[in-house]
Amino acid sequence: MKAVMLGSGKVATAMGLQLAKHIQFVEVFSPNTTHAKTLANKLNSVACSEIEKLTLQADVYILAVKDDALAQLAQQLRLNNKLVIHTSGSAEIDVLSPISSQIGVMYPLQSIAHNFNLNKWKSARICIEASTKEALSTVETLAHFLSTKIHPISSKQRLNLHLAAVFANNFVNHMLYISQNILQENLVNPEMLHTLIRETTENAILFGAKESQTGPAIRHDQKTIEKHIELLNNKDLEKEIYTLLTQSIQQKFNHE
Amino acid sequence: MKAVMLGSGKVATAMGLQLAKHIQFVEVFSPNTTHAKTLANKLNSVACSEIEKLTLQADVYILAVKDDALAQLAQQLRLNNKLVIHTSGSAEIDVLSPISSQIGVMYPLQSIAHNFNLNKWKSARICIEASTKEALSTVETLAHFLSTKIHPISSKQRLNLHLAAVFANNFVNHMLYISQNILQENLVNPEMLHTLIRETTENAILFGAKESQTGPAIRHDQKTIEKHIELLNNKDLEKEIYTLLTQSIQQKFNHE
Repeated sequence: MKAVMLGSGKVATAMGLQLAKHIQFVEVFSPNTTHAKTLANKLNSVACSEIEKLTLQADVYILAVKDDALAQLAQQLRLNNKLVIHTSGSAEIDVLSPISSQIGVMYPLQSIAHNFNLNKWKSARICIEASTKEALSTVETLAHFLSTKIHPISSKQRLNLHLAAVFANNFVNHMLYISQNILQENLVNPEMLHTLIRETTENAILFGAKESQTGPAIRHDQKTIEKHIELLNNKDLEKEIYTLLTQSIQQKFNHE
Repeated sequence: MKAVMLGSGKVATAMGLQLAKHIQFVEVFSPNTTHAKTLANKLNSVACSEIEKLTLQADVYILAVKDDALAQLAQQLRLNNKLVIHTSGSAEIDVLSPISSQIGVMYPLQSIAHNFNLNKWKSARICIEASTKEALSTVETLAHFLSTKIHPISSKQRLNLHLAAVFANNFVNHMLYISQNILQENLVNPEMLHTLIRETTENAILFGAKESQTGPAIRHDQKTIEKHIELLNNKDLEKEIYTLLTQSIQQKFNHE
């Protein structure tokens, strides 16, 4: 199978490096010449930075780019019946319709940082979708090169899953960032909270987050809430976050 | 050592049951007669529900009650030089000053739910503080009956630690609650996110949350952000939370 990777960011790199163990990348496209060359070298491939010169000789085109770049590529690329795949959690499959009739999605439910450890692929869940049986079969084959955990889901489910992942990953991490900051400013060892943090996620996973809620908000401990808000007096956004989340916790549990 | 437990809630119960393996509880106080009796039975002790009848014959009085009850007890109790301890994360040690000159704090950094598994005590961190060397020595002895992880910290540090724990535990759990809700509404198996959730906290612990931030907010992926907000159109609080946390993430990382 001959493939083209469009994109040169973290997802394109992590996915490209893993897939290159099984398939041949005949070209790597990025509008930025340096970026295209860097990833092309890593994938033992050829760089392309002019979209009109992109090879038409590959079997599959993987678009691992931001959603706005996806829309732009959809205007520029015409690949007839070649298989065209995007990797986005939030773009519908149909964004690819102008490019080809054989389209698919391969969305890794995985936080991919720079220098992503390729061993992590095997535990990553890959959400897939395709426009035809034939396309689905190839998407499945490719997804299996990344992981054994393959999940066919619809565009609507994927978008909601992506939203849920923002809360579970990005926003959880931001709560931990604010927490670590408060400890640092008060010269408290961050290790103090590590057991509690691990227990928090384990309880939410094992018993459900609904059953696991504790703290001043849910027990309406107004005195403590006021003290906390006073401590945040010089931090407008943190104060707003504290107030809003307290309100949200109280509302959820009053309504049930 | 003869002790009195004031309080009958989750902390009083979990702490009382563990301490009763080492010390004798001569009385359990709660203004609610039934609650006082229930915990007194568990601790093989005697119930008291009238504060003016509380025994003066004990060596140590543990006030495991809400902060507003603490302030009220401080007005009612006069115990001269008996050791008086509270268990609150957010109350200063001096709230106990009217009661005695020998005062202390024993704050378990541990989310304590109903039916708390007593085995968890040994991994819990106990933050302690005391007004005199003598008081500190007894508080340390009691804390060691709960756990080997004892940390002397000031009231100001403890209050900030408590605030940090609200972000790391209560608010993280609420993010996971919203996330699990979105999955449920869209018939997506909640297991899909378990690996990601575990990785999120492990990364924040190992590398720091500052280094671990990913997602649409930090990469200013406006298109995805707008799609997510649209999905939350019928959920006012979730929409407000999404917008505020996105803004907060972007502000932190622009300023550095």
